[in-house]
Amino acid sequence: MNNSQLFGGIEAGGTKIICIVGSGPDHILERIRIDTTTPEETLQNVIQFFQPYTSAGKIASIGIGCFGPLDLDPNSPTYGFIASTPKMRWRGTDVLGILQRALKVKTAIDTDVNVAALGESRWGASQGCDPALYMTIGTGIGGGYIKDGQALIGMQHPEMGHIQVLHDLKRDPFPGACPFHGDCFEGLASGPAIEKRLGARGETIRADNPYWDIEADYIASALRSYILILSPRKIILGGGIMDRAFLFPLIRQKVLESLNGYVESESLLKSIDEYILPPALGNQAGSLGAIALAQQACA
Amino acid sequence: MNNSQLFGGIEAGGTKIICIVGSGPDHILERIRIDTTTPEETLQNVIQFFQPYTSAGKIASIGIGCFGPLDLDPNSPTYGFIASTPKMRWRGTDVLGILQRALKVKTAIDTDVNVAALGESRWGASQGCDPALYMTIGTGIGGGYIKDGQALIGMQHPEMGHIQVLHDLKRDPFPGACPFHGDCFEGLASGPAIEKRLGARGETIRADNPYWDIEADYIASALRSYILILSPRKIILGGGIMDRAFLFPLIRQKVLESLNGYVESESLLKSIDEYILPPALGNQAGSLGAIALAQQACA
Repeated sequence: MNNSQLFGGIEAGGTKIICIVGSGPDHILERIRIDTTTPEETLQNVIQFFQPYTSAGKIASIGIGCFGPLDLDPNSPTYGFIASTPKMRWRGTDVLGILQRALKVKTAIDTDVNVAALGESRWGASQGCDPALYMTIGTGIGGGYIKDGQALIGMQHPEMGHIQVLHDLKRDPFPGACPFHGDCFEGLASGPAIEKRLGARGETIRADNPYWDIEADYIASALRSYILILSPRKIILGGGIMDRAFLFPLIRQKVLESLNGYVESESLLKSIDEYILPPALGNQAGSLGAIALAQQACA
Repeated sequence: MNNSQLFGGIEAGGTKIICIVGSGPDHILERIRIDTTTPEETLQNVIQFFQPYTSAGKIASIGIGCFGPLDLDPNSPTYGFIASTPKMRWRGTDVLGILQRALKVKTAIDTDVNVAALGESRWGASQGCDPALYMTIGTGIGGGYIKDGQALIGMQHPEMGHIQVLHDLKRDPFPGACPFHGDCFEGLASGPAIEKRLGARGETIRADNPYWDIEADYIASALRSYILILSPRKIILGGGIMDRAFLFPLIRQKVLESLNGYVESESLLKSIDEYILPPALGNQAGSLGAIALAQQACA
């Protein structure tokens, strides 16, 4: 791939949208932040940012990592649309089609977490490790699984945050905050679940609060399922909760205990400190992942 | 692919080995059953069966679905070897290398369950559905996930049977039979676990025994994790326990209840009867899957 070839990357979140033009972490030509308001206004601002590049033929393609749920079935008439979402104004918005028609350039879309996973696998902490799993543990909990360089999409994109984890009601009587499942992983361990349980936001809760041991148990319980089902070569844990770095050694220890020697892999048993890692791209995983997605669309 | 092109298929289990020569379910030229004794004797019998075909250049390649655990890391010096197994005599046997060197034909190996999954995806109940999940629930519990026509292998082959499922000790005080994890899915729901708990083999336990509702809960709990993590377009449930056909409607109902409308997919919500199915190839999934693996090795 021509190193000077430029691509567009869009990281679309519920409160802000980051747009970049570049070819990788060492070459970002321009970057803006747009507030997420109505679909019309927001997408118009995105189009205005990219138009000078696309009309001059300066970018080969655009990648979008978008909040969801998205319709990612290529055979569906609403492929690339936002499906049911609590953000009512965005429900049914044809994000992919609107941008593609306005900018007349090859455009690819995937979920925000799949795209961040792609970014970390291409340039970040899971570079060179395939398959790899990227989890975000924050306002919600979601995962992206990269296999053969591509994010896994099946019948629809996975919703790994909603699996069951062991919940000892005596130790943690909190019933869970997920409107669908109550005490699924996200219902127990997401930022909002912590806030509801303890009456304070995760980032303000002291490291010696005994709750963190319970939080690490939920995360380790979920990681055990991911490891046994997906067998990733590397696991990246991002999101607001994982900014509390003291969680990493706790989680690593509990994952080993939970697997109890069953998975006989050296990377797991001997190098667990290198197996479960924080992201390397920080808050740029999403926008850079969108560049990686754009590059794939051209390959 | 030339329809008259022949391939070899080997389904290697702990008690017997099935060898076939053919090109698919409608064209099996020859088939034998070999007892699994020592590695030397057993593999010699396998070699003798195929030699007339390979020495005459009549088969293009051989596929092996083998009991395990297997080393499936292509970069490992023991790729294709049987790793730690309770079958002591087979531990460290270079199944792939021994057959390949003796028969001098392209040979591919994968786990028994991955190969059965391949068979069902190629010619059976999940034909045309990709990705698809095949589970066997019997002496052990394992799963094979077919994506883009290939069985998923990550850091190693997945061990999906050992995930955690919800275990209500009041309802089912059985502590579980897994030597590694106690009450993991396999530890609670496999054939040996049922026998240990109820003192009778699963196939002899009456359909109105209240235990079956608990069994269906464990299976549904595991399927929920697989659906949320892998998002398969079809789930095939095989193995001895699933011969009890009355379990299927129970499991389907419980899967829908457990997901509680979260996965908005028509194939799941409207056609759950077509989404979770028994195998179509019966006890031929393994040997035919091995033919499919052999064909892939030539592609």
